[in-house]
Amino acid sequence: MTTDYSAQYEEQIRILEKRFNELLDEQKPASLYEPCRYIITSGGKRLRPFLVLISAKAAGGEFNNAYNAAVAVELLHNFTLVHDDIMDKADLRRGRETVHIKYGLNPAILSGDNLVAIAYKNLILDCKRNTIDILNEFTNGLIEVCEGQSYDTDFETTESVTLDEYLLMIRKKTAVMAMMCCKVGALLATDDKKHIEALGDFGINLGMAFQIQDDLLDIMADQEKFGKKVGGDLVEGKKTFLYIRALEKADKADKEKLLEVTRNKGIDWNQVEEYRQLYIKLGVIDDAVSEIKKYTENALGSLNRLPASEAIETLKWLANALIKRAK
Amino acid sequence: MTTDYSAQYEEQIRILEKRFNELLDEQKPASLYEPCRYIITSGGKRLRPFLVLISAKAAGGEFNNAYNAAVAVELLHNFTLVHDDIMDKADLRRGRETVHIKYGLNPAILSGDNLVAIAYKNLILDCKRNTIDILNEFTNGLIEVCEGQSYDTDFETTESVTLDEYLLMIRKKTAVMAMMCCKVGALLATDDKKHIEALGDFGINLGMAFQIQDDLLDIMADQEKFGKKVGGDLVEGKKTFLYIRALEKADKADKEKLLEVTRNKGIDWNQVEEYRQLYIKLGVIDDAVSEIKKYTENALGSLNRLPASEAIETLKWLANALIKRAK
Repeated sequence: MTTDYSAQYEEQIRILEKRFNELLDEQKPASLYEPCRYIITSGGKRLRPFLVLISAKAAGGEFNNAYNAAVAVELLHNFTLVHDDIMDKADLRRGRETVHIKYGLNPAILSGDNLVAIAYKNLILDCKRNTIDILNEFTNGLIEVCEGQSYDTDFETTESVTLDEYLLMIRKKTAVMAMMCCKVGALLATDDKKHIEALGDFGINLGMAFQIQDDLLDIMADQEKFGKKVGGDLVEGKKTFLYIRALEKADKADKEKLLEVTRNKGIDWNQVEEYRQLYIKLGVIDDAVSEIKKYTENALGSLNRLPASEAIETLKWLANALIKRAK
Repeated sequence: MTTDYSAQYEEQIRILEKRFNELLDEQKPASLYEPCRYIITSGGKRLRPFLVLISAKAAGGEFNNAYNAAVAVELLHNFTLVHDDIMDKADLRRGRETVHIKYGLNPAILSGDNLVAIAYKNLILDCKRNTIDILNEFTNGLIEVCEGQSYDTDFETTESVTLDEYLLMIRKKTAVMAMMCCKVGALLATDDKKHIEALGDFGINLGMAFQIQDDLLDIMADQEKFGKKVGGDLVEGKKTFLYIRALEKADKADKEKLLEVTRNKGIDWNQVEEYRQLYIKLGVIDDAVSEIKKYTENALGSLNRLPASEAIETLKWLANALIKRAK
């Protein structure tokens, strides 16, 4: 009998969506809670809450003891989206207007703040053991995501960013949050430090793979399936894994070409294909693929430190599904 | 022998200031931690952390077990200042540039977010008992302050705000935070629910008195001692206790005069004296004084539900000192 992991994931997402729909119902003032509801019911992969749930199960627990914590990490994630979209001056998110465009700057700041608070409120509901550790992990996730976003903003005005600096930034901005989800799930279910650490290692490596995959998809995705225009990172002049690695490998002429991207704060859409060919020529697409593979293998490897179970198989499926994703 | 309460307060403030100075030292990135340091070392009354400390003592505990929690509530308070100043478009705070003016919008949003996270981090350090209750109180304080700020913003564009609506707003925006400080202090020190509630009641009533006193000082303060120009609330067109109460009591002609304040989104500095005389004539200054007295007496009364101690005397001194303050 083969387990349909995808169906298992979809089922949990349905349960979570129902919770998100009911979570902030009837709360006042509307000026605060409507923007909160708007963002939290706007979909998304719901990967982070699923990581909490499945990690709890992999550590010997039950989904039922982890739903509030799962909701909490998604609220925290949505807080970062609302505030990051303000800072990045983004107009669209998941095909809809961003919160600050739809409701204005002040409600966007305030509803982001409120999402953090409601996240803690929900997290606390599930804290029956390891409470201090759970709260420290969650809080550390929040601190590192702030630090990561600051580094990301700094990079916009830093002339040369090294690959190590970039990797530290995505670790803080993305990977620590995935680690936190896995550790919180584990801490809800077990006191076994080795199992908690193993799931944390899975999460951080998965997060790193996920983010580099994000950079890669932005330029190599199938336009039909991607959901937004391919090449946006170059158009915005963002310093991605591919861009930084390309600068490292380029000769003088190619380097000049690459530096134009940041000097002009981005390129035109019609130049995307040219830069894509340059990335391919310099071998940085292959570099990204092997980096993603390395982190994914590390993630899968850390699961061997846990007892075999269906939940572990689900985590393996998830890691493999993420590197095959089209958007 | 009389205790010098003022000296006791000053001593604790010195200890707290030292902590604030050392708290974020050497942390990176500077783009995130420098704005955090800037606001947290910019002075202020440090009332909230003092409430935590003295409440812990009044509930039978020691200052030494409450310093991290005291730091936490001040960090949370400073987060509200940073984000509120953005929303209120305020240029100055404590005689210095506000964070968003000095560092820009994005660092101000992000350092505010980070202050919340560091607040939780510090709070957790002192959680040796009643952990869930402490975290719920703290989190509820954060939620209500967001709700209060939303109501406050709503009021700017609401034609008629009732006194009850106003009192609910300041309860959420100011008084719940003072209650939280007292309850957190108590929860660190005792499991006695009656004592915890009594200190909470002290805090919420003190907070209400404090905020109405704030409204009163804004128009009735001694200009020499006040530190900023008297009448700012009228100039900004804010709906304060005095303004809303005046509207309730005014006849048709006075009402027209009062409505000009909000219709024109504020008055000129040279009209302040005229409106001050109107407030006096309508008796709303007296109304505010008796409202402050009522809340202060309620605060003092709730202390009778706790065993007599020097800490209780300090709380009484504090409540009386606050209603006599000049700024």
